[in-house]
Amino acid sequence: MNLDFTYQNPTTIYFGKNALNNLSSELANYGDTIMLAYGKGAIKKNGLYDQVTAILKDNGKTIVELSGIMANPTYKKVMEGGKLVRENHVDLILAVGGGSVIDCAKAISVSAYCEVDAFTRYWLQFEPIDNKIVPVASILTLAGTGSEMNGGSVITNEEIKIKTGRVFPANVNPKFSILNPEYTFTLPTYQMISGTFDMMSHLMEAYFSGEDDVTSDYLIEGLLNSIIHSAKVAVKNPNDYEVRSNLMWSSTLAMNPIMGLSKTQDWEVHMIEHQLGAYTDCAHGMGLAAISLPYYRYIYQFGLDKFVRFAKNVWGVDETGKTKEVVALEGIDVMERFIKECGIVTNLKELGATEEMLPLIANSTVLLGGYKVLTAEEILNILKIAYEAQ
Amino acid sequence: MNLDFTYQNPTTIYFGKNALNNLSSELANYGDTIMLAYGKGAIKKNGLYDQVTAILKDNGKTIVELSGIMANPTYKKVMEGGKLVRENHVDLILAVGGGSVIDCAKAISVSAYCEVDAFTRYWLQFEPIDNKIVPVASILTLAGTGSEMNGGSVITNEEIKIKTGRVFPANVNPKFSILNPEYTFTLPTYQMISGTFDMMSHLMEAYFSGEDDVTSDYLIEGLLNSIIHSAKVAVKNPNDYEVRSNLMWSSTLAMNPIMGLSKTQDWEVHMIEHQLGAYTDCAHGMGLAAISLPYYRYIYQFGLDKFVRFAKNVWGVDETGKTKEVVALEGIDVMERFIKECGIVTNLKELGATEEMLPLIANSTVLLGGYKVLTAEEILNILKIAYEAQ
Repeated sequence: MNLDFTYQNPTTIYFGKNALNNLSSELANYGDTIMLAYGKGAIKKNGLYDQVTAILKDNGKTIVELSGIMANPTYKKVMEGGKLVRENHVDLILAVGGGSVIDCAKAISVSAYCEVDAFTRYWLQFEPIDNKIVPVASILTLAGTGSEMNGGSVITNEEIKIKTGRVFPANVNPKFSILNPEYTFTLPTYQMISGTFDMMSHLMEAYFSGEDDVTSDYLIEGLLNSIIHSAKVAVKNPNDYEVRSNLMWSSTLAMNPIMGLSKTQDWEVHMIEHQLGAYTDCAHGMGLAAISLPYYRYIYQFGLDKFVRFAKNVWGVDETGKTKEVVALEGIDVMERFIKECGIVTNLKELGATEEMLPLIANSTVLLGGYKVLTAEEILNILKIAYEAQ
Repeated sequence: MNLDFTYQNPTTIYFGKNALNNLSSELANYGDTIMLAYGKGAIKKNGLYDQVTAILKDNGKTIVELSGIMANPTYKKVMEGGKLVRENHVDLILAVGGGSVIDCAKAISVSAYCEVDAFTRYWLQFEPIDNKIVPVASILTLAGTGSEMNGGSVITNEEIKIKTGRVFPANVNPKFSILNPEYTFTLPTYQMISGTFDMMSHLMEAYFSGEDDVTSDYLIEGLLNSIIHSAKVAVKNPNDYEVRSNLMWSSTLAMNPIMGLSKTQDWEVHMIEHQLGAYTDCAHGMGLAAISLPYYRYIYQFGLDKFVRFAKNVWGVDETGKTKEVVALEGIDVMERFIKECGIVTNLKELGATEEMLPLIANSTVLLGGYKVLTAEEILNILKIAYEAQ
């Protein structure tokens, strides 16, 4: 743990089949007016909406509803929520949904009482928050982003065509989050498995950085092994509580600062996929997998020892009598077999890309760190390989 | 993650060479009177006392000193601290030291304003805390107990001859903890390596329980691999910052609730060692190692698959062509070689026990769970093996 770090995470997690039973006692800590924030109405179909509103009413709360939060929450929606917060003097924003709903709730939390344009101030200029923050809590229905236990908030400003995220300080984290793995059972397998690779990618983005040998890398290996094991079972039996609960908790941890402490981190795969997503609207995890394979087959040479370690400790490659190059590439081969076994799509054509999009994606990708900062030409080569992938 | 759980950990961690630089900004969150709690004066020799008091004075704080906190903090010391807190209206208890000093600070925190006997109420009857809690913070100088980021507080009531611990709710956790691995460099190797096995034992106590396959087990395997790797280097080069920082962070995590979530947990080795320690005052980690070897060689048969997994994933045992029994026992053999390579003493005679003590220890051990609840006779057999260990 060579690099200094600060870690703080005050979110209380209630996890399991009976997690919702903790809502009443938590509500006692907040005022009377609760904003119920949710998406397109899936929670009305599965009964969760009725359960939650009943608990809110039993506790004497006034409910202010914000419905229709979309998959990529817009700043317009954030402003709509902020207006409702101010008008109704909301005491707690209760987000019921997946990462998009929780991200939007956090954005409303920091924006509602901001007297200038909050998007510019907080998402573009990364200013510290100097206005009142409305407390947020969540009931998670979709595993993937980790937003239930971090300060992350990705918002799309449609007017100026910018989708961007920020990890806010821990006082923006949900105060408490209710995680019942059963809520995720209704998710289609395609989405579930896409989310699974998203978790793995979050961990690999942290793992593939530095020449160091830090405790965080060992934790990441452990969590990757857990996800790989659970994903294989979940594909065959999506209603297996044990593996779905493992995946839910793994997703919370995978995008939690605790896993990547003292690491410089990479995030190049996410940066490329971000632009791919802007052009194709493909499932995020699928796009990550499609890019990861050619990306890691290209950059492994710049972090060879780490890729050898990855092959051995995560993918069980036997190194006896092999060169480092062979071991490193075998690791990626085993990962590819796993990806295909799970039914993850890795061909950009199938994910909706056209040949014309590739240079546009490559040229618009902003890159950060990792073992090598890529040129637009190198990104284009990676995209071309993913475009022709079998 | 089959078992429901609640997780909360609000402690802010400042980690690294420059961690102390964060003290001033944290102090701004508290009132003027700070109790500086520390041990027998090691911090006066290494200069930390001077550094911390200078920062406190620069921030205009009034310092109330509580010195002389002993290795097993007594309830008498807790009451002495409580009196100082009340008389001086202390706003923050700043513990500078290892686990004993931090445990004592937490005990003072919950006891100072308790109007009945706090030991009976909070440590024996496990009542919820209904009086004012004084905030605690820590500057860690000794890796091992994880007290810097949990609610644990082990106190010895000498008058009634009871040493007992309790994990308090998260509002008793240190508000912030400053962890600079360099502060641990002066620790003698014997103590360092004893502390290392203590961390490993904390993780094994959680790992060896349940027939399940939970994410926590994978995290534990990752952290054990990190500790084993770092311990081997640290024995040869105790001033290697990278491995000492890995060990420091590993010790914080190893005794942190996050590692054992959704596990029933065992803690039999700790229970036996607790009584061994009461009779011999041996180094805690050494006692744990001495008991662990015969204990695990006895109970492996009741949790065979988990011991096979342990052998493979933690100790790298190749299972090809071997029975489960052979693989499980080979894992413990490799652990024993590691223990000896590190210079850990595993013979109870060398640790100060006499033959007469063994039945007294066995009969006074209170046991909880794990793969098998032992009888006093079974414990005695384990102790006899450890007594004759080579």
